Amino acid sequence: MNDLLKIADKTFTSRLFTGTGKFSNSSLMKDALLASASELITVALKRVDVQDQNDDILTHLSAAHINLLPNTSGVRNAKEAIFAAELSREALGTNWVKLEIHPDPKYLLPDPIETLLAAEELVKKGFIVMPYVHADPVLCKRLEDVGVQCVMPLGAPIGSNKGLQTQAFLEIIIDQSNVPVIVDAGIGAPSHAAYAMELGADAVLVNTAIAVSQNPVAMAKAFKLAVEAGRMAYNAKLAPVIAKAEASSPLTSFLNSI
Amino acid sequence: MNDLLKIADKTFTSRLFTGTGKFSNSSLMKDALLASASELITVALKRVDVQDQNDDILTHLSAAHINLLPNTSGVRNAKEAIFAAELSREALGTNWVKLEIHPDPKYLLPDPIETLLAAEELVKKGFIVMPYVHADPVLCKRLEDVGVQCVMPLGAPIGSNKGLQTQAFLEIIIDQSNVPVIVDAGIGAPSHAAYAMELGADAVLVNTAIAVSQNPVAMAKAFKLAVEAGRMAYNAKLAPVIAKAEASSPLTSFLNSI
Amino acid sequence: MNDLLKIADKTFTSRLFTGTGKFSNSSLMKDALLASASELITVALKRVDVQDQNDDILTHLSAAHINLLPNTSGVRNAKEAIFAAELSREALGTNWVKLEIHPDPKYLLPDPIETLLAAEELVKKGFIVMPYVHADPVLCKRLEDVGVQCVMPLGAPIGSNKGLQTQAFLEIIIDQSNVPVIVDAGIGAPSHAAYAMELGADAVLVNTAIAVSQNPVAMAKAFKLAVEAGRMAYNAKLAPVIAKAEASSPLTSFLNSI
Amino acid sequence: MNDLLKIADKTFTSRLFTGTGKFSNSSLMKDALLASASELITVALKRVDVQDQNDDILTHLSAAHINLLPNTSGVRNAKEAIFAAELSREALGTNWVKLEIHPDPKYLLPDPIETLLAAEELVKKGFIVMPYVHADPVLCKRLEDVGVQCVMPLGAPIGSNKGLQTQAFLEIIIDQSNVPVIVDAGIGAPSHAAYAMELGADAVLVNTAIAVSQNPVAMAKAFKLAVEAGRMAYNAKLAPVIAKAEASSPLTSFLNSI
Repeated sequence: MNDLLKIADKTFTSRLFTGTGKFSNSSLMKDALLASASELITVALKRVDVQDQNDDILTHLSAAHINLLPNTSGVRNAKEAIFAAELSREALGTNWVKLEIHPDPKYLLPDPIETLLAAEELVKKGFIVMPYVHADPVLCKRLEDVGVQCVMPLGAPIGSNKGLQTQAFLEIIIDQSNVPVIVDAGIGAPSHAAYAMELGADAVLVNTAIAVSQNPVAMAKAFKLAVEAGRMAYNAKLAPVIAKAEASSPLTSFLNSI
Repeated sequence: MNDLLKIADKTFTSRLFTGTGKFSNSSLMKDALLASASELITVALKRVDVQDQNDDILTHLSAAHINLLPNTSGVRNAKEAIFAAELSREALGTNWVKLEIHPDPKYLLPDPIETLLAAEELVKKGFIVMPYVHADPVLCKRLEDVGVQCVMPLGAPIGSNKGLQTQAFLEIIIDQSNVPVIVDAGIGAPSHAAYAMELGADAVLVNTAIAVSQNPVAMAKAFKLAVEAGRMAYNAKLAPVIAKAEASSPLTSFLNSI
Repeated sequence: MNDLLKIADKTFTSRLFTGTGKFSNSSLMKDALLASASELITVALKRVDVQDQNDDILTHLSAAHINLLPNTSGVRNAKEAIFAAELSREALGTNWVKLEIHPDPKYLLPDPIETLLAAEELVKKGFIVMPYVHADPVLCKRLEDVGVQCVMPLGAPIGSNKGLQTQAFLEIIIDQSNVPVIVDAGIGAPSHAAYAMELGADAVLVNTAIAVSQNPVAMAKAFKLAVEAGRMAYNAKLAPVIAKAEASSPLTSFLNSI
Repeated sequence: MNDLLKIADKTFTSRLFTGTGKFSNSSLMKDALLASASELITVALKRVDVQDQNDDILTHLSAAHINLLPNTSGVRNAKEAIFAAELSREALGTNWVKLEIHPDPKYLLPDPIETLLAAEELVKKGFIVMPYVHADPVLCKRLEDVGVQCVMPLGAPIGSNKGLQTQAFLEIIIDQSNVPVIVDAGIGAPSHAAYAMELGADAVLVNTAIAVSQNPVAMAKAFKLAVEAGRMAYNAKLAPVIAKAEASSPLTSFLNSI
């Protein structure tokens, strides 16, 4: 099948993006991420030891189909984000960056103002910018206007596993976006991921829900299948929700006619 | 893997049960049902021409892995249901029956009283009884007490595609049932099916959502994957929904230390 | 205003029914129930000392506008329910009875079979029967057919405060009922009560949410207002939920024309 | 009771704010707004004929308890908003302004960047700024930091009547805000308004749901009661949502002991 996702110059078969946080060990992380078949995996710069050629995480993520996506998680404003992006470009040799700016250490929610500022600057500096944002349709259009390659609206507060709390706004974002829409944060179960895809999201990013499961490898596989299922259903068009029942198999006339 | 579903004397690999109603033609129905990999397929007695050896539906459903499950759809009370079950046993050579009694032609909702009466009688007559019922935990226990082999509570009004409206009660039913729980009716999207499995349902039955999709074959495949995903996630244990965010990848300390 | 609720031979101004369970003391109970302006208050036979003329609960509920509604809470089958109803008729001098039969001590969910059996018998014995049932539209019609004076479907498991989990089925029950529909169990907040009334319920019954609040008197008043608000909105017809925004106050043309 | 709402130098008894859009005529608008008992009513500058001393809307809103809140609805950026605010200050003699900036004519969603820019400037110019924003907790804190007197996050797309779609984020905003939080847009029913107040919102703004009801006067009254109910419940503390049922009135032991 040719239902591929294109972001900038790369083409993805898998619409499940993953992350490297919260796994209990690197070996388990590697197995889970391979089971997910994810081709784009975020990694926090903090986790990468830029001096060490044998850095643990990088070694584990060296499969041919895997693209690393450094994120700026932990920065509090545009200036720090730009600095972190440049560091990661140098360290990892990629101009892709997941832009995350969250000044609030409690909920880790993104700052819309700093994100737009940093996005504009990073695009000018040649980065492929993937911004993590609130599910704010106007902000998503403004980010598109400054040249980001996709938008990554959140489904629910990060790490909450609450699912698509922002569904009413994701629908608007998907409706009016000219760049891929990737639902990030809040996806806590395969059913959530399938639902995001059914709504027309281009991809989802899942980290916590896989990493903290009792069986991360099986959970990664489950998310892989759910994302495929949701995308397939989106393409095949779902039946509409209807108010009144219609019989699918009445027998009454048969019994009456005996 | 050995995560099989056992009902009476049969063992199922697939946890997606399907139906034969509402397909635009028999050939499309056949292709979709094969794509679903379903091993248990309901068929309304009305649809089967019991005199005709070359009956269209039966011919199309003759694959080795497929078990037919005649249903009593359209009957209005226990007496009619028992009569229909006996007819179908004779016509199709199976003592399995999906017991559906809905006196109301508008919403096709099941009658709890007649269903219990018929179930008790049919069990005595040697049937493997699979009753379609409201998501009523007390009724499900009473059905179990008279010897049904599973319970099939509804997720939402049949044909509505509204998903798991009865979730609060399905959880109780699943918690206290000693027979398999199969969610029937209302499942309109793969995400709904995945969610039912994540809750701990043993299987789901999907008909309308596949049959009326623009692409029933692709939709059947999507449901297959979603059911597998949901089951896998259930076995791997989902991460809990939590109120407050926890950082998965803070960078702040790193930046501070430079 | 003349928007009165009629059940059997009684007419109610208030559409908020209440109960007497779980209050920390009788004085607080009395104050809260007076604040609720409720005219129909359920009382468990157990709580009434039938030998004692000075029974505490009865004394506290002796206001002129209050009708006592004995309930059969705690009984496990039709036989026990009929016995309890007759006891309460003798003890309290009323032929009204709230019929509750829950064999399961864990979730206290009602038994549909025993409830219908008891309802039919109690109607024959001259009782005004108000049955507490699952939100099962077929069962509600059958109860109506045997002569109950209203139906009392649950909104969520009793004591859960989860709100209207059964909304999809309450809408059907309300649509097709010829007797008043009173939503019972699960209403945990005034917003839930208002919502039930907006859907077209004729009344709601609230007990736990008032009794266990930190301030039962204020909470009773809040439920009173919410029920009035929901009923008023139902009569005034709610605006429809719509998918796309329409401007309520555009200024653009004004600014453009300056 | 002394549960008053204070914004800047004004104190409000009513926590229901209203608007003047979409009413079929001015007389009906007047009656509905009086029935609402609202003390703060938004009015679009466009609707006010600034040259005409006998302007229809202003005449109708001249009751002593009513404060007019001019809004900047229809402007597309900070510059236009500031211009509109200054015009309205001159025309209506108030330095209060509801700041609404929505560049998108389809969904009328607010622009976070322009809103923050305009808010900062308007505060400097001596305005009491009440910004209408997405339910974005970080943006709300930044607005607070530049000196707005409250924040007005949306519950759902304006005019949609979908209720509190943003509940997960409103809870965070309410938790961390040092200025009043007023839920604006999307509130389509009294139950929604009550729910917002139960969550801890300081007030709600309702316009469409009242104006387009079949009976705006009754609907205004319904919203008044619902807001009072929700606030009262918030102060009295709601009972927690719990998973398992607890009996409020068991009779079993009584029956057993007879």
